[in-house]
Formats: sequence, C-alpha cells, structure tokens
Amino acid sequence: MSETMARLSEDLRFPAGILEERALAALRDAGADESSAAAATRAMMHASRLGVDSHGVRLTPFYAEELRTGRVNSRPALKVRRTAAATATLDADHALGHVAAYAGIEEACRIAAESGIGAVGVARSTHYGAAGAYALAGAERGFIAISTTNADSIVSLYSGTTPFHGTNPIAAAAPVAGAKPWLLDMATSSVPFNRVLLFRSLQRELPADVAAGLDGEPTRNPHLAQMLMPLGGENFGFKGAGLAGLVTILSAILTGASPDPFVPPMNPDGGSVQPYDIGHFCLAIDPERFVGRQAYDGLMARYLAGLRTTPGKNAAPALAPGDREWRVMEERERTGIPIDPDTARFFALA
Amino acid sequence: MSETMARLSEDLRFPAGILEERALAALRDAGADESSAAAATRAMMHASRLGVDSHGVRLTPFYAEELRTGRVNSRPALKVRRTAAATATLDADHALGHVAAYAGIEEACRIAAESGIGAVGVARSTHYGAAGAYALAGAERGFIAISTTNADSIVSLYSGTTPFHGTNPIAAAAPVAGAKPWLLDMATSSVPFNRVLLFRSLQRELPADVAAGLDGEPTRNPHLAQMLMPLGGENFGFKGAGLAGLVTILSAILTGASPDPFVPPMNPDGGSVQPYDIGHFCLAIDPERFVGRQAYDGLMARYLAGLRTTPGKNAAPALAPGDREWRVMEERERTGIPIDPDTARFFALA
Repeated sequence: MSETMARLSEDLRFPAGILEERALAALRDAGADESSAAAATRAMMHASRLGVDSHGVRLTPFYAEELRTGRVNSRPALKVRRTAAATATLDADHALGHVAAYAGIEEACRIAAESGIGAVGVARSTHYGAAGAYALAGAERGFIAISTTNADSIVSLYSGTTPFHGTNPIAAAAPVAGAKPWLLDMATSSVPFNRVLLFRSLQRELPADVAAGLDGEPTRNPHLAQMLMPLGGENFGFKGAGLAGLVTILSAILTGASPDPFVPPMNPDGGSVQPYDIGHFCLAIDPERFVGRQAYDGLMARYLAGLRTTPGKNAAPALAPGDREWRVMEERERTGIPIDPDTARFFALA
Repeated sequence: MSETMARLSEDLRFPAGILEERALAALRDAGADESSAAAATRAMMHASRLGVDSHGVRLTPFYAEELRTGRVNSRPALKVRRTAAATATLDADHALGHVAAYAGIEEACRIAAESGIGAVGVARSTHYGAAGAYALAGAERGFIAISTTNADSIVSLYSGTTPFHGTNPIAAAAPVAGAKPWLLDMATSSVPFNRVLLFRSLQRELPADVAAGLDGEPTRNPHLAQMLMPLGGENFGFKGAGLAGLVTILSAILTGASPDPFVPPMNPDGGSVQPYDIGHFCLAIDPERFVGRQAYDGLMARYLAGLRTTPGKNAAPALAPGDREWRVMEERERTGIPIDPDTARFFALA
C-alpha cells in the first residue's frame, strides 16, 4: 500500500493546535456558525491527525468557498425527528456535512443507549470529509458505530463505461477496552480520485485495476484516467459496485436524498452552484444489549491479540484496521502535521 | 466474471420440486426436526434456484452427516431473548445455521416493524449456507435487510502468511416495488475455497490475486493454493480484510460466538467433531420510518432505472446486484436445476 499512498511534502509541518486554530478561523470568516465551523474543523483535524491527508485541513479553502457561494448553508437549522423507538431522521438544511454527520451519530448513540441500536438517516446534506470521523465518535461513546455517505458519480459500475456511483465510503468503528478503537474507513472504489490527480502531478503509473479511461477500459496512465473502478477491479468489481450500491440505498434512497447519479458534481466544470442533496446513514449498536460489555471486551481483546500476533510478510506483524492510523497520530503528535504549500499559504503559514 | 464461475454439469437437470423433496427427506432421515429440515432445504433451494450452486442442494450430504455425528443439533431449542426495544439475542443451541438465521431475520423484522430497525445477534450456531437467503427473507417482508456470519479461518489478512478470517459474507437485500428485490450476497474474499477446488479438478489457472500458497505469496496454481486472499488482493486487500473483520465483530464478538480463528474447521482433517460456535448478525430496517414507503419506492425505481440504462461494455446493459440471479432463476424454472453426479447419486436420481 505504501507505494500508492498519497504523500504530502515532509518539509512543512505544524503542530495540530495551529492548524486547528487556522481552519476554525477560516470557516468562521467564511460565515459558518459556531457549531458548523467546530464540526468541520474537528472532522478535518481527525483526518489530518490520523494521516488521511486527502480529507484533512487541505479542504478548508474548499469548504470556505462553498460557504461563501451559498452552496453550503452557513447557518443551518438542523431538524431531528424521532420516528420510532430506534430511528430518527435528520434534515441537514444543506449544512456542512460534518455538523450533520456528528449530530446524526450522536443521536444514533442516544437512541442505542435506550433501545439497543439506533439508526439516523440524514438528508439534504453536503460533503462530509472522512467517514471514519463519525464512526470513531460513536465508538468513543462505547458503541459499535457505522457511518456511510453517498457522493457525486465518479466510479464506474462493474464492466461499466461511465461513472455511476460516488466513492461511497463505509466507515465502522468498535470500542476496545483500554485502547484506541478498531477503526475501518474505506471507499468502495480502490482509490479516491485525488490519488489519480496526485499520480498525474508525479508523472507516475497508477496501480492496475483502479481507474479507467473515457471508454471504461482500465488504464494505468493517470492522464487518461477519467473515472475510478469499483473495489475488486476487472474480475471482482461487482463486489465493490454492490457495496457502493448498498451505501447509496442506506444513505440516499432510505433517507430521501439524491442517489449518486443525480448529485450535482462536487467540482463542476462550469462553476454551477446547485445545492447538494446527499445523504448519510448513521448506526450505533450497544454491546451491552447483546453479549454484554464484559464478554464483548474479552472477546475483542482475544480477537485482536490473535490478529496482531499473526505473522505477516517480511516478519511484520499484522495490523488491525486503525493500527496504522493510530501510529501516524502518535508520530504527528511529536513531529507535527505535514501540509502542502498551497494550504500553508492559505493559512498564512508560509 | 463468467470465466471464473463454478459451472456444474449441464447434463443432469431436475425440476426444483424434485430436489426440494429429496433434500427435505434426506435431512429428516438424518434426524432433523421439521423446522430444521424445512429451513435448511429452503436456504439450499434458494441457492440452487438462483445459481449459487456452491451453497445449493449439493450440501445436503454434508448437513446430513453433521446431523448424524451430532456435531449439529438435530432437535435444537432456539432461545430468543428481547434485550431492548430494538434488539434481541438468539441462542441457536447448535442448530443447523439455516433455522437459526431465518428465525433471527424474522425476529429482526418483527422488531423493525415496531421500532423502525431491529437487530438480532445469533450465537452457538453452525454453517448457514448462502447469506443472501436471509437478507432476501427480510426484503420479501418489506425491509432493507442485512445478514452476516463468521466462519472458520481460510482467508489471509492483508499481507498475511496464514489463514485468519473466514470467508465472512455480507448479504444485503432491499425491496423494489413490483419487482424482485435488489440482492447482494458476497464473500469478503474474492472467491470461495470451493472455487479453488473446482479449478484443481479442471487443471485451470486461478484468476490473479485471489489465493496464496503456504507462505502467503499469491499463486495462480490451484494445486499450490492453501488459503484465500481478501477482496482487493495484494494492493487493496486491507479493504477486504477490514470488511471480514467487521463481519467477525458483528457476528461473533457482539453475539458471544467464537471469532474465526477459534472456530473448529468445517472439514477437519482428523475427523474431529467439536461443535461449532459461530454467530450471525441479522438487521432489518423499515423504510416507512425514514423517508416513507412511497418516496423510498420512487427513489429506488429511479436509481435502478438509471443503473440499468447505464451503458456497459460490449453494449451489454449494466446489472444491479441480483439481476443475474433472478435471470438464472427464471431460466431454471423452465429448464430445471443442474446438479453434479455425486449429488444426483445421493438423491437416487442417477
């Protein structure tokens, strides 16, 4: 994986506190109300701390512009409606997706504490950054939590020739007693489109089976790549496309948001400012209402101990989802968070 | 995909009714009580009708043997315990997994009708065949339904050198007004191990990136393959492994069943008959408590119409998950269900 990871310049590193302050200030300047600015900053800092730089503070100028054009509502009135003992809907009023998704998972956790499981469907929302931020928020409250979102079309179907689904991530997190949560955050394509853009700028060949040209034929030339392929590629992409569809069903069709092909593009060529209407699905499950907290903790510890002592290649121990990210976080707490020159300039740090 | 599909002999075809009758009789003969025999037959016939032959009636002798040895309890007392407004646990008492999983998803649907969503954790269960059978049962009652199960270790971790997770399927189904449900049923490995066995018998090379030798190195030689690789293969197998882990957490750790590495093997070399203790997770979601049934139906229809008119390669229209299976079912209703010679002999049909 490391050879295909996006890497930012290691030259410009700043303490998390500085970046957090600048991001928050930039969103306030762009008109965001306090809870929107705080939620978007929290989610971007989650990504920047854990090494998911594609969704880190580099997106601050993008969100600021969306707020300024009015495409994203800077002063939204979120409306939560409890619809049954274990379900609620949340009308995000075109808020920054971050404030809607944190509110959604927090409501799902409150419901799960009462009813054992809680599901919240969020509609009329916008781009929410790293899905893992919201699953993690649920796990930090003691729940197994899942967060999904749909997005604008950029991923082909299996054997397809045009973009259809969004990169439609699935994030899940599970509490681990006395340690950081188990944390999975994955797009249902093999790579995000900004990986293609990075490889263009580096003049490097893409991994096989991740992107396709205008005709839907796989290409390793980043300059010819026009769309992403679903996880599983040419042989098994029906699985990635199926998971992307499940995310669309839960996030958009169930909630009443726009399915991916009808979502206005995130970066429209013609500068159109149609409001987004994407949806998120938020799920929280209370282990206490299943095997019980103590037994859950014991089984989770036994499972993870087994996993982490499984021999990997080159004698490297196996990693659980999140292990790499928690290590990056520890390293960045010591050495600072690397950012690209454009973002440094935007923050008046270079 | 078709080149890597397991294909049974086309010579021996029988009407569904005959196979159903023989499977049911064989399970009764092996001592199964009426509800166990009926559930296992129903699940196997689901697979045989839809073309998932690996989990079809060819498994009848396997289940019959498991019942005879007592490894599977032929007269189980399933115990459902409602733990909160939206959750329940089900102690399967080492039943055939099919009877436990149908009972679990039916309970999840009953709960979802009251509480908007329902989750049931099943423990002390056994091999349940095709996960899609249970998700479909939920969708046929009008719910978005998800079924997962853990299983014995046969899939390596990302960059791993030994089997760790089971093939841990994720099945999901969603109602479509006036038509068959959307239906996804996928292992979190690229292929099941019986695909490797089939390719051995055919002396054919495996697809790339699906199986590994004793050392964990990928191999296309089916005779050298000792384990499966997670979906995503060498570059992106951390995604398949992460999904397999999510299935283990929901199916086993949450329910109190054995995580995959501690599950006794399904086909032990030494003929040991340790009881299984695998778990299933059953989820049902009521669209009525989110966007409402009418809006859900309209969005689903619009999404699927868009998908099915998306141009595919060779001018073939794109397929939604399940479309291929429903076509196979229609064809088999006309032409009969193909079975292998061993199964035909077991059923005294050849």
